[in-house]
Amino acid sequence: MKSNFIELEQGAGGKKSEELISKIRKILDYTGQWKNTADDGAVLDLQSFWTWHVQKGHTTSFSASKLVFTTDAFIVDPLFFSGGDIGKIAICGTINDLAVMGARPIGISLSLVIEEGFPEDDLLKIIKSINDISRETRVPIVTGDTKVTEKGKIDKIEITTSGVGLAGNIISNGGARVGDVVISSGDLGEHTAAILASRFNYKTRVKSDSRPLVKEIQSVAKYLTACKDPTRGGSAAVLNEIAEKSKIKIVLDEKTLPFKKEVVAISELLGIDKFSFASEGRFVATVAKKDADKVIKILQKYNSEAKIIGSVGRGRGVWLKTLIGSQKKIETPRGKLVPRIC
Amino acid sequence: MKSNFIELEQGAGGKKSEELISKIRKILDYTGQWKNTADDGAVLDLQSFWTWHVQKGHTTSFSASKLVFTTDAFIVDPLFFSGGDIGKIAICGTINDLAVMGARPIGISLSLVIEEGFPEDDLLKIIKSINDISRETRVPIVTGDTKVTEKGKIDKIEITTSGVGLAGNIISNGGARVGDVVISSGDLGEHTAAILASRFNYKTRVKSDSRPLVKEIQSVAKYLTACKDPTRGGSAAVLNEIAEKSKIKIVLDEKTLPFKKEVVAISELLGIDKFSFASEGRFVATVAKKDADKVIKILQKYNSEAKIIGSVGRGRGVWLKTLIGSQKKIETPRGKLVPRIC
Repeated sequence: MKSNFIELEQGAGGKKSEELISKIRKILDYTGQWKNTADDGAVLDLQSFWTWHVQKGHTTSFSASKLVFTTDAFIVDPLFFSGGDIGKIAICGTINDLAVMGARPIGISLSLVIEEGFPEDDLLKIIKSINDISRETRVPIVTGDTKVTEKGKIDKIEITTSGVGLAGNIISNGGARVGDVVISSGDLGEHTAAILASRFNYKTRVKSDSRPLVKEIQSVAKYLTACKDPTRGGSAAVLNEIAEKSKIKIVLDEKTLPFKKEVVAISELLGIDKFSFASEGRFVATVAKKDADKVIKILQKYNSEAKIIGSVGRGRGVWLKTLIGSQKKIETPRGKLVPRIC
Repeated sequence: MKSNFIELEQGAGGKKSEELISKIRKILDYTGQWKNTADDGAVLDLQSFWTWHVQKGHTTSFSASKLVFTTDAFIVDPLFFSGGDIGKIAICGTINDLAVMGARPIGISLSLVIEEGFPEDDLLKIIKSINDISRETRVPIVTGDTKVTEKGKIDKIEITTSGVGLAGNIISNGGARVGDVVISSGDLGEHTAAILASRFNYKTRVKSDSRPLVKEIQSVAKYLTACKDPTRGGSAAVLNEIAEKSKIKIVLDEKTLPFKKEVVAISELLGIDKFSFASEGRFVATVAKKDADKVIKILQKYNSEAKIIGSVGRGRGVWLKTLIGSQKKIETPRGKLVPRIC
């Protein structure tokens, strides 16, 4: 079978564009309650939406009246890696941005900018992995745009996903309180570790942790005082953001650091701080101390590595209590961080 | 004053990123009823939204329950041209995609992928023109993402805008009926003409027609049976889409063609079909014959060139009735069309 390469013409808005778009659409076969009228956008009837989800048993009766809206651009190198590809991180990234705010994602838009000459099989593989997550999470890809650029105008492919969700109560980054504990939904930094390993041809069992977080966050949402997924900038960036916005101090315990030994090894080998390593399917959160055991128990159903990793106190910044009892500051990463990975 | 160039570090998620994002946010000073909690997304309380708009007199009582969602990627060369820039077409494009479906746009997301070394002044100029349209239309930019790539990974800047809107009744492309007339909200093709002129250093008075269409479409929405903005692929693509989806035949009249003589001149000079020229601030629509005069009269308040350009009959395809009475088929453009302009 001959392998096709994307041509400029396939992005020009004519017949060849229609053919490419219909191939993409055929793969994206989960549409939920949205109506795709093949107009410029997709349509959702909000009133019938909840009725349908309650009937199907996807959710209990729920009168969420807050619309949440988010967007993210993805340029990744390599496009395919152990544990995922650019499509999987794009859809997981957008779903997770909604989920960490306490929202139920209801629809995703998919915008593709493809370089002329890009292999069509690779494109369809990427779309396929987007669809897998879409089906798994019951979050449909409802609208999109496909542009093709001349050679050299873009590096292979760029994906921008936007998402809308509905929420009752919003979980904000500014809600952590003195006396809370800090939890992690699993070990961190595996996405960056996997990408670095594949770039440097370093053999490791570490895979990207890319995955959707809707179910596990919804199952504990009512207990979370702050929540965030440690993507770009890693746990260092995200915990500092929570500390700053909540006007509190976070102290992590070196005894319970959420890093696998393989991740630590790659971090040390390359001399890059593991706290700046990104995850694409984990969250860190704060919860009242009294709720912590309950929350961890629920989260361990999804990931046995879920655990308490620190505490919230008076003060500012993020600190690491080392094994010898001293405290070391963990700063928001500056500079180029790790090589570009998301 | 020294001129700054965007550095990789400004997209890395650390302090320098925050500084760039806060410069961008400072310009985007219209937020409407959305709450930006500085989390991963923006939040809108749907219940209070309508109350507020009715109080402010922006709209009359309105119980729209349909959510409309759209997205579009923009790579334009040149970035600045007579009548606009990439920022203006991006926001107008997304607002117009919602407007032609009969929706009131309620929020836009802005995703930027910027090449390292791009002049910061140009970036802020682009953001400024986005904000101008945002204020004019009262459609806030509510969430965004800013990535910076290494040199050569993208050509200068790529913008993806997504938009959400609320609608009562959706205007679909499939709604044109035999006996309707075809109208145009103004002369067409000026966007492509202006871009081509600037590329080939051809002196002309033609400016890009880029502008938001919310008000004029809302003022006649209840009369429109089909509606579409002739962007990529021009009026040829859009009218063929309406004809195909509505299963009718459109006949345009050569006596009332909606093209300025400067646009015709550029089309003839370069040998590119004027029907494939894009507009970024016009719409074509079908309306019942009995409503046509009323609709045109309303639209002429916005643009004196609004007029009837054809009729809807039994059959298929789009045809041009020439001055000598013969009929010539207008095909959906194939191939690369005009040089890449949107």
